[in-house]
This record gives sequence, C-alpha cells and structure tokens, in this order.
Amino acid sequence: MRLFNKVAIIGTGLIGGSMALAIKKKRLAHQIIGVSRHKSTLIWGKKSHVIDKGSQHLSIIQDADLVVLATPVNTILKLADVIVRFIRKDCIVTDVGSTKQEIVSKLSKIFPNYVGSHPLAGSEKRGITNALTDIFKNSLCILTPTKNTPPKVLKKIKNLWNQLGARVVVLSPDTHDRILSFVSHLPHVIAFSLIDIVPDKYLKFGATSLKDTTRIAFSDSRLWVDIFLSNRKNMLKSIEHFENNLSRIKSAINKRDEKTLIKILKEAKGKREILG
Amino acid sequence: MRLFNKVAIIGTGLIGGSMALAIKKKRLAHQIIGVSRHKSTLIWGKKSHVIDKGSQHLSIIQDADLVVLATPVNTILKLADVIVRFIRKDCIVTDVGSTKQEIVSKLSKIFPNYVGSHPLAGSEKRGITNALTDIFKNSLCILTPTKNTPPKVLKKIKNLWNQLGARVVVLSPDTHDRILSFVSHLPHVIAFSLIDIVPDKYLKFGATSLKDTTRIAFSDSRLWVDIFLSNRKNMLKSIEHFENNLSRIKSAINKRDEKTLIKILKEAKGKREILG
Repeated sequence: MRLFNKVAIIGTGLIGGSMALAIKKKRLAHQIIGVSRHKSTLIWGKKSHVIDKGSQHLSIIQDADLVVLATPVNTILKLADVIVRFIRKDCIVTDVGSTKQEIVSKLSKIFPNYVGSHPLAGSEKRGITNALTDIFKNSLCILTPTKNTPPKVLKKIKNLWNQLGARVVVLSPDTHDRILSFVSHLPHVIAFSLIDIVPDKYLKFGATSLKDTTRIAFSDSRLWVDIFLSNRKNMLKSIEHFENNLSRIKSAINKRDEKTLIKILKEAKGKREILG
Repeated sequence: MRLFNKVAIIGTGLIGGSMALAIKKKRLAHQIIGVSRHKSTLIWGKKSHVIDKGSQHLSIIQDADLVVLATPVNTILKLADVIVRFIRKDCIVTDVGSTKQEIVSKLSKIFPNYVGSHPLAGSEKRGITNALTDIFKNSLCILTPTKNTPPKVLKKIKNLWNQLGARVVVLSPDTHDRILSFVSHLPHVIAFSLIDIVPDKYLKFGATSLKDTTRIAFSDSRLWVDIFLSNRKNMLKSIEHFENNLSRIKSAINKRDEKTLIKILKEAKGKREILG
C-alpha cells in the first residue's frame, strides 16, 4: 500500500536506515531518498538497496511528500531551520528524536504538517550497516501531536508506523519526556555512571551481571549528552528519585535492616516481572 | 579422570546442580550425593540423573571425600556447624558462596581441609531444573585460601574447577569481597533500586535499555539480602563511590556542562569496551 511518493530520510543511521528498509519492503513509497554527512553511508545505502538515491546536500529533498529527521536530537533542532527552505508546503515532516518537548516546540512552529515520533526500538549499535527491516516489529512508537497538529497528518504518520509493525501510543511531548526520563534516559545515566567507577584492574572479574547492567554504556556519547541536556529538567528529577531510593537501600544495609531490604527487593522483582 | 570417590553437594540449585552435572559428565567422582530441603528437587535430580542419591538429611554425607556447600550465604554459615558432625576428618570442604570473608573466616576454623570457591557463573535463574553442564566453561572461578589452607587441598579444588572448564584465580577473601562489591553486588543494588522507582504505569514503555539494565532484578531477594549484608562494609563503600559519580553527572547536566559529560561518557564507553 503506497502511502507516499518520495520519502526523504535525513540521517540514514540505525533508525533512519531501518525505516528506509522497512518502507521499501512494504512498498509504502515510490522512492526513498537518503541524506547523510558521510559519503560512505550513502554509497553503502545505495549498493545495499536501502535507499534509491542519496546525497550529502539537503536540496535533494525538495519534492518529497514525507521528510523524516533521523539525526541526533541537537542536529534535528539545527536542521529544521535549513530544511524549511527546501521543502514543499504540503510536505509532511516527522522526526524520531529521543526527546520531544524541545523538538516539538520548535518544529511545530516551523512546519505546518509536522508531528513528532519516537519509535522505542534500536540498540546500542549504530549506523546503516546495522539497519534491520524488522526493527519496529512489535515495538511501541510514541507520537506527540499538539493541539495544532492537523488530524490528517497524525493519521498518516500513525498509519506509517503501523505499517512498519509498531503499535502507536499518542502522548503529549511533556508526558513523553517524563516517562522516557525514567524508562530510558535514567538507565543510560546509571549504566555510564556504574561502569565508569569500576577500577580497570577489576574489569576482568565482570561477568553477566555487570555486562547486562552496563551494555547500553556502549551507546554513542555525543548522542546521549544531547538527550540528557534536552531532557534536563526531567533528568534531574528522575536522578534524584533514584538517589533517594539508593540511599534508602544503603541505609538499610548500614543498619542491617533485613526486613526493609527484603521488602524493597521483592517489590523490585515484582516490577521486573511486569516489565517482562 | 576420577578426583573423588563420593561428592556431596549440599544445596542442589542452579550452581550445585550444574556442578553435579559437570562432575558426572567428566567422570570426576564415583558417586554424587545431593542434599536439598525440597523433596521435589531430589526426585527431579535423581530422575534426570543429575545426582546418584539424594536426601533431605545431612547424615547422607558421612562417607564423602568432598563436600560442596552450594546454598545461599547465610545457610552456608549456619550449616557449617552441623556438617562438621557428619563428615570424615580428611574430607575436603568447599563452598560456592558469593561473599568470602565471613564464610572463610568461619569455615576455615571448623574444617581443616577447607578452601573457599566462587565460580563467576550463573544467572538470575534458579533451581536444579535450570542447571547446565557447561555453565562453568570459559568462566572464572575465584579460590580464596588462607595461610592455613593445606596446599594439597588448594591443588585438588583448583584441579576440580579446571576440569569443570573454569579458569582459576587465587585471591584473598578480603580482595575477593572488595572486587565483587564493584563488579557484581553493586550492579545488583542498582538494578533493584532502579526498577523499584519506575512508576507502574510507565513500565509498558520500558524497552531494551531498561530490560537489560534491570534483568538481574529477577534474582532471588533472600539470596541477595544475605550477600549485601555479608559484604556490608564493601557495599557501603562501593555504593558511596557510585553515588559520588552519579552526583557528578547530575551536576554536569544541571550546569549544562557538555564538556564534562562527554568526557565521562567517553571514559565509560571505553571501560565497557574493555569489559567485552
């Protein structure tokens, strides 16, 4: 089912590349254009039939009826001002940034047909070479319309994500950022912070528990600093929340308070079971 | 190569059960005895040929030339006083407890032929039904002899772990507990503490990052409270260390100090890469 004629994906990394692959597989567009800073990405993308055409220059997006911004958060914010000069007025615009308040606030002012997306998919891996057609299958995708989002734009982008295999949940940008600070951004802060304090000479004793807990510390530093700063207020709150709970556990260990410890650990285990 | 005649494993859970399986496969003992509080475990163990004989009563261990204590830390401490009444004087004793100072201090006084073991294997899964023959293959096993440990006992237990596929590292109980507080016990405290503060209604938005970071919160609560309390002093230090680093990241987010954040995150990523 064709939804778009020409789709332009700006930032053909893990998520952008996977979108291109999935759109192609489902024949949702006539043509898929990729924009990347890296020539090698574009060459690889064309050779591997991830994109139909590619360029390092934004002018290539001019006839697109869908533009997807799939770069790191800060680059999305910077590119918006430039992109607006190249696109058609009726072009639908979305982004896949991990934070939404700052992005939606800016982009909804610039683009009349914009709605923010955040597919909860991906991994600590990066780049078009790790792109997967099925990455969105059975995942959640959060859409963050505002009161000014045209209903037809929301409907079309919702349809796109459904076609890519994702279940769509609609949240306000504000609610999105608060939730994500707990379920994604805080775990990243913690993983980086934890592995950072393990003395080098102890690393060889790290087994599954340390590896699992800190796997996401493989993630790109620049990308995550952008996210932490873009979601600054929520981050400060969720970190404080975590600090208070950790301090409660520390104090129970200090006082040898088995009862409190058992209670906290059982509660935690129960929540982990719900997470699945 | 037979190393022992009769091996008695007290606590035939994930680790005890896996030891039984691996000892049997490698024909390292003539007979493997299992002791468990749970009759169902013993029935399953015998039917599945994990153990040759099983009992809920410790008297069954009396002719053993190797006794392995594979129960939670607190039970190891409690059982030691009882076991000594049943075993031969020349019986070799080891345990697989996750902390070593408290256990080694007590058990080395009770058993003349004792050395502490800690195989860095296992998972958040429990019980004999999850036992795996290859669980120790390519893993590390830490042995914690004291100045009174007979060299022949250390040699024999080292040989046992090597036969089970583990690389053996010898550390003092003190060094063991300090290292493990960083690479295993602290990650557990953090995982429990993190999942515990995620509001229930946010859990459905938890994707790979939250799942990976908190997988070990599936672990048994009682088991881990014992470990935290048995390694209390080191836990308090390692938690404080982590708190200070987290606070440094929080302060950098608060001040929008990109330079410091990039530095910390890159350092963390580098360490994660060493961990492998």
